[in-house]
Amino acid sequence: MIPTITTFGWVPEFARGFVRDLRPRWAFEEVGQCYRVDLIADSKSPEHRRLQPFGQVPTYRDDEVAIFESGAIVLRIAERAGQLIPAKPARRMRALQWLAAALSSVEPYVMALAVNDIFEADREWSNARHAKVVGDLKTRLADLEAVFGDNVWLDGDEFTVGDLMMISVLSELRGNAELAHFPLLSAYTRRGESRPAFRKAMADQWATFKAPAAS
Amino acid sequence: MIPTITTFGWVPEFARGFVRDLRPRWAFEEVGQCYRVDLIADSKSPEHRRLQPFGQVPTYRDDEVAIFESGAIVLRIAERAGQLIPAKPARRMRALQWLAAALSSVEPYVMALAVNDIFEADREWSNARHAKVVGDLKTRLADLEAVFGDNVWLDGDEFTVGDLMMISVLSELRGNAELAHFPLLSAYTRRGESRPAFRKAMADQWATFKAPAAS
Repeated sequence: MIPTITTFGWVPEFARGFVRDLRPRWAFEEVGQCYRVDLIADSKSPEHRRLQPFGQVPTYRDDEVAIFESGAIVLRIAERAGQLIPAKPARRMRALQWLAAALSSVEPYVMALAVNDIFEADREWSNARHAKVVGDLKTRLADLEAVFGDNVWLDGDEFTVGDLMMISVLSELRGNAELAHFPLLSAYTRRGESRPAFRKAMADQWATFKAPAAS
Repeated sequence: MIPTITTFGWVPEFARGFVRDLRPRWAFEEVGQCYRVDLIADSKSPEHRRLQPFGQVPTYRDDEVAIFESGAIVLRIAERAGQLIPAKPARRMRALQWLAAALSSVEPYVMALAVNDIFEADREWSNARHAKVVGDLKTRLADLEAVFGDNVWLDGDEFTVGDLMMISVLSELRGNAELAHFPLLSAYTRRGESRPAFRKAMADQWATFKAPAAS
């Protein structure tokens, strides 16, 4: 079977370009693997929760494996293709370290800002708390900025799953002023977003919402 | 060389038993791998930041690999030992899926509660926001509770890195009333905490703080 991901057939306008299927789409494009997309209308349905207990997207399936979690899915796509993960243990584990860092050490701060400014925008604490949330995020971004010297990617010249995940997370700050304070990180993010595979993945996510919604 | 982790020689009382070195310690004990611990006094020093750019612990080193991020470290310990990760692709990827779920889909909600109730306790929004943060966490815990039927571990009878990481995260809710609302999850967490390897790891973390502080 052709590897298949599940994602939303429709999302509100503010979420377009931010749905997590971007990550497996990008990985598929990088490794040159064709894939199918199953569009769903309701991620909280009992049927979908059998694939994804938290009622989220994406999920992934191939002829051997059925999983959720974008971090695990991207790893599966990369390992199955024998690409995006270096073979030597030292470099391999650094690629996985950066994938974990994107998910554990950076994304929670990016999400905290979205939670405060979007999902808690109507709560009485949202305005007062904004500066604290931005401050915590900027501390993380400054730490990451300091990693880059002449590096093109996180671990030198080779683009890995670690970069794919880190740039996916940083790219979610588009439309937000904070990333611009960090010139090396901004350039790194733009470098990732300029890759043909990223652009194709993003265009394909957007194309979904221009098609008729899934029933 | 003997695999070596870096962690704190001293932490404030509220953090004891919660330092992330518990995760590699537990993995080492599960696979029967002896290890060394380098104690540091200042995780924000330039020297330590060369190992861990965010100025956190733990870091890990063996004769081939030097990494940070507890998710990647636990994976390395498991892969190096050929334990805690099933060999067959379907089960292997589900173990990695649950490891990713612990870090991406559960830990941010556990941490959000700690951030609100401990690190933002003196902010004007902390009391008002508490119920929202608890509500978000309970939604996640309820979703996870629904995964368990007769399962002993997340994917059946075999304890994997996915369980090690999920229980590490859930165990951080000890001293908190929320987990008790979910009987299957509570029993699962206690089952993990009862493993000899977890108990040894926890005892060894506590023993550090009874020894003289690192200079």
